[in-house]
Amino acid sequence: MGTEIEAVRDALRALPRPADLAARRARLDGLGRPDALPPDTRVTPVDADGVPGEWTLCPDADPGRVLVFLHGGGYMAGSLDSHRHVVARAGRQARARTLALAYRLAPEHPFPAALEDAVAGYRFVLKQGIAPERIALSGESAGGGLALAAALRLRAAGDPLPGCLWLASPWVDLALRGGSLRTKAAADPLIQRLYLAELAAAYLGGADPEDPLASPLYADLVGLPPMLIQVGSDETLLDDAVRLAGAAGSAGVDVTLRIWPAMIHAWHLFFPQLAEGRAALAEAGNFVDAHLAPEDRA
Amino acid sequence: MGTEIEAVRDALRALPRPADLAARRARLDGLGRPDALPPDTRVTPVDADGVPGEWTLCPDADPGRVLVFLHGGGYMAGSLDSHRHVVARAGRQARARTLALAYRLAPEHPFPAALEDAVAGYRFVLKQGIAPERIALSGESAGGGLALAAALRLRAAGDPLPGCLWLASPWVDLALRGGSLRTKAAADPLIQRLYLAELAAAYLGGADPEDPLASPLYADLVGLPPMLIQVGSDETLLDDAVRLAGAAGSAGVDVTLRIWPAMIHAWHLFFPQLAEGRAALAEAGNFVDAHLAPEDRA
Repeated sequence: MGTEIEAVRDALRALPRPADLAARRARLDGLGRPDALPPDTRVTPVDADGVPGEWTLCPDADPGRVLVFLHGGGYMAGSLDSHRHVVARAGRQARARTLALAYRLAPEHPFPAALEDAVAGYRFVLKQGIAPERIALSGESAGGGLALAAALRLRAAGDPLPGCLWLASPWVDLALRGGSLRTKAAADPLIQRLYLAELAAAYLGGADPEDPLASPLYADLVGLPPMLIQVGSDETLLDDAVRLAGAAGSAGVDVTLRIWPAMIHAWHLFFPQLAEGRAALAEAGNFVDAHLAPEDRA
Repeated sequence: MGTEIEAVRDALRALPRPADLAARRARLDGLGRPDALPPDTRVTPVDADGVPGEWTLCPDADPGRVLVFLHGGGYMAGSLDSHRHVVARAGRQARARTLALAYRLAPEHPFPAALEDAVAGYRFVLKQGIAPERIALSGESAGGGLALAAALRLRAAGDPLPGCLWLASPWVDLALRGGSLRTKAAADPLIQRLYLAELAAAYLGGADPEDPLASPLYADLVGLPPMLIQVGSDETLLDDAVRLAGAAGSAGVDVTLRIWPAMIHAWHLFFPQLAEGRAALAEAGNFVDAHLAPEDRA
């Protein structure tokens, strides 16, 4: 195992994040692995009430259950292309259709644009006649925070909540108070405080970093559905995950926190060359599969 | 679900913890449920190198795998009798033999007596020819802290470590710094700060509450085996579990933290009348089963 994650680290070192935004977005899109999309995956573009999206469906999946996925990329990058291989595999493991959403990005579209798109995408699935207990809401990194914020907004609006939440390496504190930002700085090859501060400023566009819809760690989390949080031990965002688990659990949410040794931020992306990426997607898929009601065939 | 845990709370209210130590011990022993021990459970007393213990073995279990269990009771109470039904069911679910240990109790035997007994009990299993990767070390409440401390002492002594750890509602901070001691005081029917302070004083007998072998939250946890931590959302000890998950995960341990909504301290004890007690024991058993190597029949 050690050698695979070391090879991922080497590859990332060879591909440093550019300062230029367009180049940065292209770099993350370049981490997408179209070659890792099995040929039996059906990919269908969709307009989710104004939000560009994409369905995937694998042969054994139940099309009556939907995993809604929000990609990572710090609210400034990421796309359907960067995460298609991850979403499709998660859906295969969960035996569910997936809907990935290309929510609007900062700085062109600051908070709460992405949140509005995430909520619209979830409501679009409801309008397709999918019952909420057959929908999982999920996301990675910024997308994990966004999934949680969307659940909070849905709760406030009185919408029916999804059956479960899956949050991979979630970023939930834009006020950047996690102790691991310091203690894991040397171990994390991707996410450093200065970079997060830049992302937070662009996304917030002047909003309060403790706004619970931007930093759901500071929200009252009562009433949210069962939640799987996955994080790597070598992440500066480790404490975002641990503090979220504590806050959600204290609010009476059914919480599963999984901390994966030696894994780095959003390691699922590298599953084609990383056994722990495949194992983490299997874990997430099993969680979603177990927490979504089977399709009503009546 | 709500009505079962409410009935447990009502029963506990009707049975307040006495001030007198002998009566207190009798009360915890009285929570044992001999009627919940299926007739196919083989129970065999054993002298584990000077520590009184007890094997249980269920028909489908692999006798070549052993779940070592350390009961709760704040280092001052608890026994083979109080937890026999819990241990036996955990072993059945884990498909393993169990060894429960009646470690010495405070105040008669302060720290590190219990720790020495736990270590001796584990080494006794090794001496029976059971490979360490076929042993799980586990405990509930004070027994959870004790299991963790025993793993630390074994690591320091160069002993081979068990295949996994299962900690139910663990008490790992005798310095009592968890925020949930306050935030969950009204919700927790069993464990309050004053009671914990009394227990800590009796067990420590003058030792430092931050001694990592008494309060393993303050230990360097590097190198410990995969760990399942289960805790209820209505426990004053919730933050012991959350902080332990964070510390162990940060040290590179494979951590699973499960927070169970509406559950109270050591709810597993009440599994005969509580579906979540049965589900939590099934979860723990599955974890142990998945993390222990199968018996070597070569």
